[in-house]
Amino acid sequence: MHNLKIDSGRLWNSLMEMAKIGATEKGGVCRLALTDLDRESRDLFVRWCEDSGCTVSFDAMGNIFARRPGRNNDLPPVMAGSHLDSQPTGGKFDGAYGVLAGLEVVRALNDAEFETEAPVEVAVWTNEEGSRFPPAMVGSGAFARIFDLEEAHGKADMDGKTIGEELARIGYKGEGCGGRDIGAYFEAHIEQGPVLEAKEKTIGVVTGGQGQRWYEIVLTGRESHAGPTPMATRRDALVGASEIVQAVNRIGHEFQPGACATVGMMQVSPNSRNVIPGEVFMTVDFRHPDDDRLKAMNDALRVAADAAAAKHTLMLKFEQIWSFPATPFEQSCVNAVRKGAEQAGFSHMDIVSGAGHDAIYMAGVAPSGMIFVPCEDGISHNEIENATPEDIAAGCQVLLNAIVDKAGGR
Amino acid sequence: MHNLKIDSGRLWNSLMEMAKIGATEKGGVCRLALTDLDRESRDLFVRWCEDSGCTVSFDAMGNIFARRPGRNNDLPPVMAGSHLDSQPTGGKFDGAYGVLAGLEVVRALNDAEFETEAPVEVAVWTNEEGSRFPPAMVGSGAFARIFDLEEAHGKADMDGKTIGEELARIGYKGEGCGGRDIGAYFEAHIEQGPVLEAKEKTIGVVTGGQGQRWYEIVLTGRESHAGPTPMATRRDALVGASEIVQAVNRIGHEFQPGACATVGMMQVSPNSRNVIPGEVFMTVDFRHPDDDRLKAMNDALRVAADAAAAKHTLMLKFEQIWSFPATPFEQSCVNAVRKGAEQAGFSHMDIVSGAGHDAIYMAGVAPSGMIFVPCEDGISHNEIENATPEDIAAGCQVLLNAIVDKAGGR
Repeated sequence: MHNLKIDSGRLWNSLMEMAKIGATEKGGVCRLALTDLDRESRDLFVRWCEDSGCTVSFDAMGNIFARRPGRNNDLPPVMAGSHLDSQPTGGKFDGAYGVLAGLEVVRALNDAEFETEAPVEVAVWTNEEGSRFPPAMVGSGAFARIFDLEEAHGKADMDGKTIGEELARIGYKGEGCGGRDIGAYFEAHIEQGPVLEAKEKTIGVVTGGQGQRWYEIVLTGRESHAGPTPMATRRDALVGASEIVQAVNRIGHEFQPGACATVGMMQVSPNSRNVIPGEVFMTVDFRHPDDDRLKAMNDALRVAADAAAAKHTLMLKFEQIWSFPATPFEQSCVNAVRKGAEQAGFSHMDIVSGAGHDAIYMAGVAPSGMIFVPCEDGISHNEIENATPEDIAAGCQVLLNAIVDKAGGR
Repeated sequence: MHNLKIDSGRLWNSLMEMAKIGATEKGGVCRLALTDLDRESRDLFVRWCEDSGCTVSFDAMGNIFARRPGRNNDLPPVMAGSHLDSQPTGGKFDGAYGVLAGLEVVRALNDAEFETEAPVEVAVWTNEEGSRFPPAMVGSGAFARIFDLEEAHGKADMDGKTIGEELARIGYKGEGCGGRDIGAYFEAHIEQGPVLEAKEKTIGVVTGGQGQRWYEIVLTGRESHAGPTPMATRRDALVGASEIVQAVNRIGHEFQPGACATVGMMQVSPNSRNVIPGEVFMTVDFRHPDDDRLKAMNDALRVAADAAAAKHTLMLKFEQIWSFPATPFEQSCVNAVRKGAEQAGFSHMDIVSGAGHDAIYMAGVAPSGMIFVPCEDGISHNEIENATPEDIAAGCQVLLNAIVDKAGGR
């Protein structure tokens, strides 16, 4: 058993330094994928990794890999990773924590002059949030061959700019993507939910991810003047949309335990005070740890959307744009995380990830695991997202332990 | 009795020429108040009026007045008017028709070398729609001393630009506003509703306007991650907002006959697919011809908004930003319109205006009346807004008759 220790102060300082890029007034971060700010954060990460003796490369999706050689470089690397892009009103920890915890593992191995058997890599995945280019997790998804490269490059933002164009613009469009062996993949992340805090546990040993489905709905009615158009002859797209919001929320409550159901986005057109809305675009995000229940939620949503459209004489465009099934993590990786927590003396519990993460896609091409740490009030995707330096350090120590467990060495 | 006739072809051509400024692909117009396109439309109107021998001036609100002298220029002018600004996805007729019908009256008087006793003026009122600078009808409202000038100049668009700044920028900020006698005010307008078409009447003799109230509502919950945040602990602002949309629609139906109730605008924040909405801004537009019923609608809305906020643990900001009472038009003006329709042999009916119009404010400072003509399927505030050349000409002929009735002359 090794005696390696991460440097909690150094990790915290790196996190705070990274959080300055795209810092918002309310203490959060706005660093949308492939913007100039995203490039700035990538450049900083690359510099830090090179300063730590890593060889840095990036692939055709702009996924970055910083490699610390092992004793046997023919072995597939053991990888830590996450993302540096954020939500429009995101926090300091979501994503950046997993990336910088990986870097801290490299730095701690360097400090101890510890040689792993297999090489260690730290990965930054492109466009994990999907806020700018839906859907989420496109970089790791392309690496895992969930999306083909052309499809991934073609994903566009609201202004029609594509991932391919923006990668080239910021200078992070390399060659090739995926198709190589990864020995194991670990991702440290804040929980983004309230469970660890409520149960007073330091480490969440993540056993897998929920199934997830994303939808886009467009309701088209008839825009007309809010004054002289009688109530009886209206075709108000927003009245129909509000019934779907109600249905989504009702379905979320009906499919407990485990269901989450959210309308996160809504665009009303023409969005003028005295015009009856002619069109509404909205998104739905459904999650459930049980795929059959998730399917039943899907069916209930379709019934509700059809009913709302029929009731208000609206045209309905209903599309499931993305999904993945419930994903259990590989047992040896889950065990390495649990053992890593016990080794360091941290309280821990098993937990299912409510959020999508790059690790969910990586689980398709490599043995994978995740480490959760508590975040304040369970709040994430919010500028007030917060975590304690102690919990942040604990998760990183468990990441170090799990990586050394899998990479071997002395 | 005079024998004056308007030139329907000339009127139609002027309307189509004006509609080119800000023309949209779908055949409508986007000419928001005090934009460069609005300036272009004003410049064209001014040129046409000067070509017709009018003296043109504008006041501190950018309201334009084109004056054709009468025999006795000490008499207060008889005025026709409306507006040239449009909704973001507006039609060719809303507003522009009343202005260009006024111009056609002047041209027809010129053709016949007809001298009115009182001078005739054609007015263009600034920011009638209120789409860019809420609320609506700010130019005529300032003329009628509903708003004081400083307040009106301070109205800001979504980017924080004010009416005062934008008037100066486009060169239409003159001196003074209102405070002079107007002999009578007439406004020709498409009905913007389905009643005349359904009853097969050419002319709507408008007896007055509905009472109207505008509200702004902000619901604040807590934005957090759509995945790991349990349904039970959410404070989803959009779920609360959708209940208010439902309540507004229900109130509109409950207060029949006569009620109109619309949520036209909604902004969701942060508007990301996998973030529970932390804040929603929405507007409500209530109308009723009976002020007591309108007050009862207001009370019902407040109860519903409070209930939605309490149910989802949201902070509620509820503000009535604008209102005016039901406004009957002066009897002699209503009679002049009715007589003008009969004189020309057009079918007609009395009607209450569902929409707000500059005439509603003008009714506070001058005897006022309105002339409605049918529009296709009752649709307005929509790019497909349409009316027939015959109906457009008919309304203009009635306007001419009413103006000569009030201005006198031979």
